[in-house]
Amino acid sequence: MTRPLRLHPDRLFPADAGTRDIARRLYGSVKDLPIISPHGHTDPEWFAGDAPFPDATNLFLAPDHYLYRMLYSQGVPLDRLGVPSKAGPSPADPREAWRMLASNMHLFRGTPSSMWLNHVFGEVFGFEIELSAETADLYFDRIGEALQSPAFRPRALFERFNIELLATTESPTDDLRHHKAMRASGWKGRVVTAYRPDPVIDAEHEDFRASLSRFGELTGQDVESWSGYLQAHRMRRAAFMEMGATSTDHGHPTAATADLSLADAEALFRKLLSADFSPADAELFRAQMLTEMARMSLDDGLVMQIHPGSFRNHNAGLFARYGRDKGADIPTRTDYVRALKPLLDRFGNERGLSVIVFTLDESSYARELAPLAGHYPVLKLGPAWWFHDSPEGMRRFREQTTETAGFYNTVGFNDDTRAFLSIPARHDVARRIDAGFLARLVAEHRLSEDDAHETAVDLAYNLPKRAYKLDEPARTPAAA
Amino acid sequence: MTRPLRLHPDRLFPADAGTRDIARRLYGSVKDLPIISPHGHTDPEWFAGDAPFPDATNLFLAPDHYLYRMLYSQGVPLDRLGVPSKAGPSPADPREAWRMLASNMHLFRGTPSSMWLNHVFGEVFGFEIELSAETADLYFDRIGEALQSPAFRPRALFERFNIELLATTESPTDDLRHHKAMRASGWKGRVVTAYRPDPVIDAEHEDFRASLSRFGELTGQDVESWSGYLQAHRMRRAAFMEMGATSTDHGHPTAATADLSLADAEALFRKLLSADFSPADAELFRAQMLTEMARMSLDDGLVMQIHPGSFRNHNAGLFARYGRDKGADIPTRTDYVRALKPLLDRFGNERGLSVIVFTLDESSYARELAPLAGHYPVLKLGPAWWFHDSPEGMRRFREQTTETAGFYNTVGFNDDTRAFLSIPARHDVARRIDAGFLARLVAEHRLSEDDAHETAVDLAYNLPKRAYKLDEPARTPAAA
Amino acid sequence: MTRPLRLHPDRLFPADAGTRDIARRLYGSVKDLPIISPHGHTDPEWFAGDAPFPDATNLFLAPDHYLYRMLYSQGVPLDRLGVPSKAGPSPADPREAWRMLASNMHLFRGTPSSMWLNHVFGEVFGFEIELSAETADLYFDRIGEALQSPAFRPRALFERFNIELLATTESPTDDLRHHKAMRASGWKGRVVTAYRPDPVIDAEHEDFRASLSRFGELTGQDVESWSGYLQAHRMRRAAFMEMGATSTDHGHPTAATADLSLADAEALFRKLLSADFSPADAELFRAQMLTEMARMSLDDGLVMQIHPGSFRNHNAGLFARYGRDKGADIPTRTDYVRALKPLLDRFGNERGLSVIVFTLDESSYARELAPLAGHYPVLKLGPAWWFHDSPEGMRRFREQTTETAGFYNTVGFNDDTRAFLSIPARHDVARRIDAGFLARLVAEHRLSEDDAHETAVDLAYNLPKRAYKLDEPARTPAAA
Repeated sequence: MTRPLRLHPDRLFPADAGTRDIARRLYGSVKDLPIISPHGHTDPEWFAGDAPFPDATNLFLAPDHYLYRMLYSQGVPLDRLGVPSKAGPSPADPREAWRMLASNMHLFRGTPSSMWLNHVFGEVFGFEIELSAETADLYFDRIGEALQSPAFRPRALFERFNIELLATTESPTDDLRHHKAMRASGWKGRVVTAYRPDPVIDAEHEDFRASLSRFGELTGQDVESWSGYLQAHRMRRAAFMEMGATSTDHGHPTAATADLSLADAEALFRKLLSADFSPADAELFRAQMLTEMARMSLDDGLVMQIHPGSFRNHNAGLFARYGRDKGADIPTRTDYVRALKPLLDRFGNERGLSVIVFTLDESSYARELAPLAGHYPVLKLGPAWWFHDSPEGMRRFREQTTETAGFYNTVGFNDDTRAFLSIPARHDVARRIDAGFLARLVAEHRLSEDDAHETAVDLAYNLPKRAYKLDEPARTPAAA
Repeated sequence: MTRPLRLHPDRLFPADAGTRDIARRLYGSVKDLPIISPHGHTDPEWFAGDAPFPDATNLFLAPDHYLYRMLYSQGVPLDRLGVPSKAGPSPADPREAWRMLASNMHLFRGTPSSMWLNHVFGEVFGFEIELSAETADLYFDRIGEALQSPAFRPRALFERFNIELLATTESPTDDLRHHKAMRASGWKGRVVTAYRPDPVIDAEHEDFRASLSRFGELTGQDVESWSGYLQAHRMRRAAFMEMGATSTDHGHPTAATADLSLADAEALFRKLLSADFSPADAELFRAQMLTEMARMSLDDGLVMQIHPGSFRNHNAGLFARYGRDKGADIPTRTDYVRALKPLLDRFGNERGLSVIVFTLDESSYARELAPLAGHYPVLKLGPAWWFHDSPEGMRRFREQTTETAGFYNTVGFNDDTRAFLSIPARHDVARRIDAGFLARLVAEHRLSEDDAHETAVDLAYNLPKRAYKLDEPARTPAAA
Repeated sequence: MTRPLRLHPDRLFPADAGTRDIARRLYGSVKDLPIISPHGHTDPEWFAGDAPFPDATNLFLAPDHYLYRMLYSQGVPLDRLGVPSKAGPSPADPREAWRMLASNMHLFRGTPSSMWLNHVFGEVFGFEIELSAETADLYFDRIGEALQSPAFRPRALFERFNIELLATTESPTDDLRHHKAMRASGWKGRVVTAYRPDPVIDAEHEDFRASLSRFGELTGQDVESWSGYLQAHRMRRAAFMEMGATSTDHGHPTAATADLSLADAEALFRKLLSADFSPADAELFRAQMLTEMARMSLDDGLVMQIHPGSFRNHNAGLFARYGRDKGADIPTRTDYVRALKPLLDRFGNERGLSVIVFTLDESSYARELAPLAGHYPVLKLGPAWWFHDSPEGMRRFREQTTETAGFYNTVGFNDDTRAFLSIPARHDVARRIDAGFLARLVAEHRLSEDDAHETAVDLAYNLPKRAYKLDEPARTPAAA
């Protein structure tokens, strides 16, 4: 059965007619604002090389763990979905993999994935019928053709999407060659990097030792000495800032921070290098490094992002065969009040530091995060993240944080995605949900419509620019 | 004051007129579907013997901890409510107990109990005025009379309620005589059992040793040896399957699982039998047994249900005098991410195993359970349970699980009740709430109405049949 | 830009027209009921001395941590906001501080603070334009003038606000002189005290030793002996009851209770006095004292309130400079099920005891608190507290507790404030939110409108009077 694909202009607005009218007006003032994407995981090589994307499966399905984890949960093997394993590329025929997705679209009913996909199918590729078993081949063929045309190259899409700024995320061991190539090419698209040092901080990461060696090579520092190790961080941060970075990012299992003496920090570092360390040692080192990163941020001005609370690689069998980031990362209960205290005791009242905190544990929104951000000058709240980057998730974020932290201790939207084509769809969802939330406040006479308009624009555009220091004169020439 | 009793046809639908219209249409397509009740606690003797229920108090009040715990919380002694104690039957006159309920109906405003009761009073008994102090006797008399008529016998009600299948829950030490008698009687009602081995697994259960003896007698196994004990489980599972069982059920204090070596499991079992064991030993044994049950399910195909997180018998004084299941079980914070890992590491990627997980800790819906069920092939989410089997509770379940797990990693509704007459009321509430939730998605243009119709039918009928393997050809002849 | 200030008559009601009509009717029956304020932190000296309040900054901003913490979170130093430090009064000019607030009102969009302020500005001071940078001086001047007039003295406002009863909160070491003076003055306003013994119970409180000495002086007891210490509590409780107290209040870091033997309690007390104690000792002592307080309540009839779960003075630097209660108290995850068990095992089934429990951890509403209060005769649920005393917070409280605990295990509203002028605003918000919640139940046909009217009046007026024993014949002459 073939069904029409329609992106209703009122989608995601509250159903009540009066509230919807207000939402429509608020959304009208933000829908065409440029996209600021200050945190995400697109591949800089796309913009450096500007090569065409290969086909629908390799564009949409194989890299998107939101999609293939859902199919996997219903018993479809990853090998049939185009997902590469440690042994090499997937044995699946891309067209067959695409058909598998197409015939299981009912699994995504009520999920953000279906909204994002339909947005892309309708807005970017112009489809007017839904993806289904019947239309799988039509989709696969038309998408394949389109991708060969110049209008669907990464840079062309970047411009078409009205992206004012896009940040990627790299490891300190990345030589930033794609960012350099982009700049050398003279292309005007503003793509910057962000400093994510987890591989050289997390001693439990499978690549820790190899990353550390590479870290030493790139910086010429003795990274087996504590002072050399810290100096290497300073150098790579500076190098990242030359490629436009205004932020760092830290994806630790918990939000723990520590504030050890120099001697204790040094001894701990030596212990980690000896490889004779416990999980508690590794945790304490990650905790200490957040405080070290904060100290460096006070010097160089980089905004810190903390993304804690994911139990990575939960599925042992899958990890052994397919490696990381395969949809098997599961959120855990996360404490902030005790975890952040050492860092806050040291730097919480600094006005020159900015730390953006995220959570996968919504129970902390009203209980911990809004009260912390509503008090400490250094703290801001990142938007609803990952599993919660969804209509209901975003609504809960606003409902549970606004009354204590207000809107102005939040930082606007992050798409946080490597699904490049979904970026406009994701920002559009955020703008619609914020418009709907503000519209409810207006309809309940808790906020004037004038104030709501101003706030809507701030959430969509001004707050991310300010929070990520994107409108400040850059400290390094290259960031302009 | 006497007030009319009205069951409004639009009850529980969202108030917004447009959304309500959609909900009405969706509900229309499911309201008359047969009831599938794959998990509950009705007494098989009712259907085996088909004896009349005694009176209103003994039918509604004395066995329903939802009702008497609320009266108890306001200072009414259980002895006045018909609730039996360990010393014997209640000293209360049933009519007096009924009057006590009737004159306190305001306590139930806004609770599901009042909706369930009113549904039964109106739909099953035809009352058109509300229960109150003034109408207490009228109710007591009319219900008493009705219960003597053939139309109110258990089997007649079963048929009138349009129940396609009803599962009861029995201990391994139950000889299943009522199920056997039912089958022998030639009655066509499909009532099956389910295997709930807690009394022979939980060494802290007050009947553990006695249950174990009985377990040995029934199976002829040496249940004091580890292999004999496991073999006894296999034999009782097979016997339960002969009485139609398609599932097991496990009501542990936590969701902990373990995967011990054979030697360690055996040693632990011996320790428990020595009675010289710690609470941690008992917990580890329950954890190990979940993994053992999963292993057996891979062989015999029974679906596992895990109902963790209730702190049983919290009120020490009440437990001493009245025993278990007296409304004093309190939910606790429950971890799933670490707890389930040992079992999932062993069997999480099996396609021949199905584990349905429940929770009393709603904070785990979006954080842990939806991400786990949205990834692992073996996991499905049971519906909102116990305290959360209520309009707001069900809404939160859908709002917090759908965006990550979708609808198709859930299993439809369980009434989980021993209040037989409330079964249609409870399924009706679930169908109305799901219709309302789907209607909101349609009204917000997040789902087409066609897809919503299909999903509504799946939630009400197809998913429970599939999840509990009720439409599969049975592996044992008796289950047909 | 100057904008009109309007308090819309329908504010906070649900947007749906039909539901709003019902809410309007329900609110109509409660809006003019007298205010019962059984728990709060106003200063009894205001009513004893009836001196005029000084100016807008000292009335609104400097004492209100909701306001200045938000400004502080955005980088405004407390010294610029009129907040006194340990070193003495604030160096800020009150008018300058007021301008700082006025020009940052956008920070409060969507927060209850903005609703409360606007209510006071509009209803109490008659402003018809919003506070902003442009109107800061106008506001400061007009408020300053008004405060000098007799109509704005504390007692006149008390009467204008239609307050039937107001409870303040004092330490056992307070000599209650202001309460005595009030009574001696012949003023008819009913202002009573409440017994908050934290400073003589919490050995980690910075004033513990000094408070203990004062406690001994006031009572003439040897408070370094366990029996003398307990006797001193009994005496101060009696003295508080003479000043109208009907309740005690306990603000511990957790909800832990204990039930030690006499010998163990005595030994623990000696250890605390030796000053050679661990945090765990201090915690155990607080836990034991809750049980001791319950035992005394059984004798003297005082209602217990437990307000647990705040991590006090989280910001070490701020605490060192400005002291306690400066907006740096952060909620923590709070367990009730295990924490309350020792007290409940001892006294949970008493009908002569009443314990009102509060939480800052909303995840405990549906999981722990509603099930506990829906079972134990001694337990009632306090209203949404502190960070959750807000429109969304109150809604969540009702949505998450009503289905299990009903309305009648809750105790109506507490304003819990030291912002005297905001008391009518806060009660008005609570009445509107409850009207809106009840209206939704009526609109969804879950409650009749007659029952909703009765319930609305109970929540606004009857339940607080009953729960705090304000309509019982007093046991002491002074309480009448």
